[in-house]
Order: sequence, then structure tokens, then C-alpha cells
Amino acid sequence: MNISIILVEPKYSGNVGSICRVMKNFDFYDLRIVGSREIINDEAKMMAMHARDILESAKFYNNFDEAIEDLDFIIATSGARGGDRNLKRVPITPKELADKIYSINGNIGIVFGREDDGLRNEEVEKCDLLLSIPTSKKYPIMNLSHAVAVVLYELYCKKINNKFEDINIREASKEDKELLIKKFNEFIDKKNLPEHKKRLCKIIFKRLVNRAFITGKEAWTLMSAFK
Amino acid sequence: MNISIILVEPKYSGNVGSICRVMKNFDFYDLRIVGSREIINDEAKMMAMHARDILESAKFYNNFDEAIEDLDFIIATSGARGGDRNLKRVPITPKELADKIYSINGNIGIVFGREDDGLRNEEVEKCDLLLSIPTSKKYPIMNLSHAVAVVLYELYCKKINNKFEDINIREASKEDKELLIKKFNEFIDKKNLPEHKKRLCKIIFKRLVNRAFITGKEAWTLMSAFK
Repeated sequence: MNISIILVEPKYSGNVGSICRVMKNFDFYDLRIVGSREIINDEAKMMAMHARDILESAKFYNNFDEAIEDLDFIIATSGARGGDRNLKRVPITPKELADKIYSINGNIGIVFGREDDGLRNEEVEKCDLLLSIPTSKKYPIMNLSHAVAVVLYELYCKKINNKFEDINIREASKEDKELLIKKFNEFIDKKNLPEHKKRLCKIIFKRLVNRAFITGKEAWTLMSAFK
Repeated sequence: MNISIILVEPKYSGNVGSICRVMKNFDFYDLRIVGSREIINDEAKMMAMHARDILESAKFYNNFDEAIEDLDFIIATSGARGGDRNLKRVPITPKELADKIYSINGNIGIVFGREDDGLRNEEVEKCDLLLSIPTSKKYPIMNLSHAVAVVLYELYCKKINNKFEDINIREASKEDKELLIKKFNEFIDKKNLPEHKKRLCKIIFKRLVNRAFITGKEAWTLMSAFK
């Protein structure tokens, strides 16, 4: 599956560099820019950090149509919702996009507009879907690279099923936790404590275990303490 | 519920300004900084945009302990997972935090470390929970303000139940969609078309409706076309 990130006339080199970095953070590599190559300067390189390869392989286009020509499914993004657009479309959220995108076949593009006034109506109308990030009414407009970060994060999390690919520790199973709680309760019952204290300890320990994101290994280690 | 964002010795003013902006985007207001007030300069103000109020009301602390003193539950964030830390803790994901955080009572702090080397072990150990953002092995370390953006986005989406608070358009119900498909099928049946074409049209239209995030209003409008 091929997902391209398309920036339409970005104004700030720092943003473009930051976007390269976050693309690499989330395993996206195809960057397309509608606009001038001059956007790639030292600041862009600095912000891209270890993602200069994405910056250097970015493709440039003279206009929006050229940038999307070979794509099969195009998602427009917008920070301004409702309001005065003639063609009111219901935007979907990044989570909704993540739920649907992996069932789409073909080349996909996600389009982000200008820092100051986003995508134009005619650009949005050329896209298949409109996406918006839920934000506060008090200040809905996000920094461009933040918006890209949030969208790519959602797509990446869905792809890896919200599990760390580089961590191989399993959370304790329901059975592990129940066994640990049982061992603790038996341990408490043998203590010389007033009944109400015992009950309270049991409740607190149970809450603790359920709240603690305890691993299987931790649960089993702890059990030995109550044997 | 009170959630504070704590930055430990941030180095770049631009990052601090960007973080103020994204805090306001997602309705967070309490910013705490361990470090010098000099971080707030013109660049920080420029990046904060319409969130200068958060920048100007940021609280400064001489050390980590002071910054977390009045907090009841503290979440450390880390970009470096596993590896050589002595005290290996299983990080939770932003989604897991969002699922749990609203059941915590008291004042909560989310701590973000230095741009270059994150939080120190002794700082992480003072926290109740460790959070990490799932990222690609190829380049796991995110820009600081991007990491804040992703975490606050998840918490905000959970709070508002992943619905736009400023949009009042409902997606078409299952019944609306089924009725629309039924009307289309009736319409097709009356056409002078070969049977296999009819069947194909019906399948394609059904797929289309199910894929399209159609609104109730759109579904009903379209129905009139097939009457």
C-alpha cells in the first residue's frame, strides 16, 4: 500500500522539515510538494533531522492536478469546519480514516493545505474524502506539521494494531491478575489484622493491580512474595 | 479534572511556543517548565500564535521535584524504549492512557523530557506511569512538540468521544443506507438492462454507499433521485 503526503504551497521551510521527520517516525516516505524547490533550505534540513532522505527525495509539482494525477484515492484535510464553504461536506476524523484506509486499493494521497488558509474549495472538491482533526472551538487551527503528525500517528497505530513493535512484553492476562489477587488475599487472611482492615487491604490491592498495567512477569514475580 | 503539561529543561523556544499552541488546540491550559524563563523569547511567542496566554501564564520551577509537588498522578513520557534502562518499565500507549486517565481523581501531570536526551532515570522513577508513542524502529525519536501534540490529541478525542463538537451533521443510519440501496435497486430493476449489468450496478452502488460516509441528509436527498 502506497500513501503519499502532499503539501500544497507550504510557506515555512521549518514545517516541511518537521513533516519529513514525522513521516519517518511513522513509516511514510513519499512526500510531494506543490510549489517551489526553494522551500528546501538549511532550516528545513535542520528540522528534518534524520529524515533528510525524505526531504531530498521530495517530488515537486507546478500545480495540484499534476501532484494527484497518478493517485487513485485522495483525502483532503481541513482545519476550518462548517462555516462558509458552499459545498458542505462532513469531514471524517483521523480515527475514522484509519479504520477505512487499509481497505482501499490503489495509490492514496493525503493532502495538507497552506499554513495560513488551507486548501481552496476547488482543491477539496477534487478529493474523495475530507478529513478534519477534532480540536477545541477556542482555537481550532493547528500548526501544519502537528496536523500531519496526528494523522500519520493514527494511521501508523492502526497498522501496528496499537502495539509497540519493538517491545516484547505482554500485559498480564486476566487469569494472571486474578491469581495474583487470590494469593494476596490468602496472604492477608493469615495476618493478624482486624476484619475491616483485611477487607480494605484486599480492595485496595485489587484496584492497584487493575490500574497498574502490570506485565505477566511482574505479576508472577509479585505472587512469590505472597506465597 | 486538572491536567498539567510539564516540560523538563526544554532547549528550543520554538518548541515551547508550538506546545502552547497545541495545548490550546486541545483545551489544555496549565504549562509548567523546569528551567529558565529565558526560553520565552520572540520565537516562542511567534510559534505560540493565538496561544500566547498559555505561554505568558506558564509557571517556572528550579527543579523537577518542585514542579510535581502538588500533583497526585504523574505520567512520564519516553521516546527511547527498552534498551539500557536499569528499571525496565512497560510503557503504555497514548490510547491506553486516554482510556484510563479520566478515571483518575486528583491533579495529573504529563512530563516531557529534554529534546536531546529525554527524562533521566531518576525523574522517570518519580512518576506513576510511563508512556511512549508507538513509532517506527527506523526513526523512533519524535520532535518534542509533535510528541505533545499526539498525546494531547488522544486525550482530547477521548474526552469528546471522537466527535466534532462544532459539527451537527449526523452520519446516515444503517436504515437510511438500506432504504437508499433499496430505492436504487428498484430503480435499476425498472431499467432496460441485461440482468448481469443490473446485478453489477446494484453491487457497486451498495459498496459506494457503505464506503462514502454519507450523511442522513445526503442519503434522503439521493433517494428522491431514484423514486
